[in-house]
Formats: sequence, C-alpha cells, structure tokens
Amino acid sequence: MSDTAQWLGYTSALLTTSSFFPQALKTIRTNNTEAISLRMYLLFSLGVSGWAIYGLINQDGPVFWANVVTLPAILVVLERKVRAVVAASGRKREE
Amino acid sequence: MSDTAQWLGYTSALLTTSSFFPQALKTIRTNNTEAISLRMYLLFSLGVSGWAIYGLINQDGPVFWANVVTLPAILVVLERKVRAVVAASGRKREE
Repeated sequence: MSDTAQWLGYTSALLTTSSFFPQALKTIRTNNTEAISLRMYLLFSLGVSGWAIYGLINQDGPVFWANVVTLPAILVVLERKVRAVVAASGRKREE
Repeated sequence: MSDTAQWLGYTSALLTTSSFFPQALKTIRTNNTEAISLRMYLLFSLGVSGWAIYGLINQDGPVFWANVVTLPAILVVLERKVRAVVAASGRKREE
C-alpha cells in the first residue's frame, strides 16, 4: 500500500471513528437510551466486528484500527440499551 | 484477497451500510433535523468519502462499495440539516 493510501486511510479512520464517541459519551452521561434503536446497534456491532476481522485478514491497518477503536464506543451504547430493555421487560412482568 | 475475506467484507458492508438508511428515511419523512449534529455529519461525510477513495486506490471492493453506498444516505441528512441551519439564520436576521 502506498504512503498516500495509508495516510488517507488513517485520516478517514480518524474522521469516521471519532463520530461515534459523542453518542457513547452522551449515553454514559445520561444513561438514556430511549431514542436508541436496539436492532440498529446490534447489526452495527456485528458489522463493525466483521470489518475489524476483515482488516486483520487483509493486513489492512486503517480498516483494522478504525473498527477496533469504534467497537467499544458502539458496545457501550448497546450494553446500556440491552440493560434498559431487560429492566423494562422485568417491570412489565411485575405489573 | 481470499473468497472468505471477500464474503466477510461484503457481509460487513451490508450490516454497517444498512444501519444508516433508517436515519436518512426518517429525515426525509419528517424533515426534522433538530437533534442532528451538523459537525458530526460534516466530519462523517468527509470520512466516508475518504474511505471510498481509499477502497478505490487499494482496489478493495467491499470498502469501496460500502462507503459509496453509504455516502448518499449521509449526504441526504447533511443537506437537510444545512438547509435548516441556513433557514434558521435567515429568520434570525429578520428579527
């Protein structure tokens, strides 16, 4: 891979990966996941994990690192959402 | 690239790319972009464009197509948001 391609890859990685952190921080801060789509975050987590493995297989640094770093930001939101869904279904059973 | 890697790449592409369409459809339907972060969508559009070029340079089909198909979904939201911001700043000037 040329240096230009590497540079472009890591710049793109920085731009797209950093886009996911504000949501994660907001979710941690507010613990409010009402507006979050569980299905979307499930599919997205699977996709980002797939991309990380894809980057590893192809020894593609930018693709690997972009997705490995994005994954925790997505999983934090997913984990809070799953907790909220489980808690809500527990409350329903008690009613 | 091995067939397995290709398959993994396109499956990941399908998962992550399809995650962005519900937002685009919702924005088109409601025309409400109040909760959308202009800065995040600007950075994200730049990043996705960068990834598309990166995929093209590396002749990496999954990376190229995932980002080329995602881009319009992002740009639709960005375009509506920019319109809303411009309209709001116009109203402010009139006041």
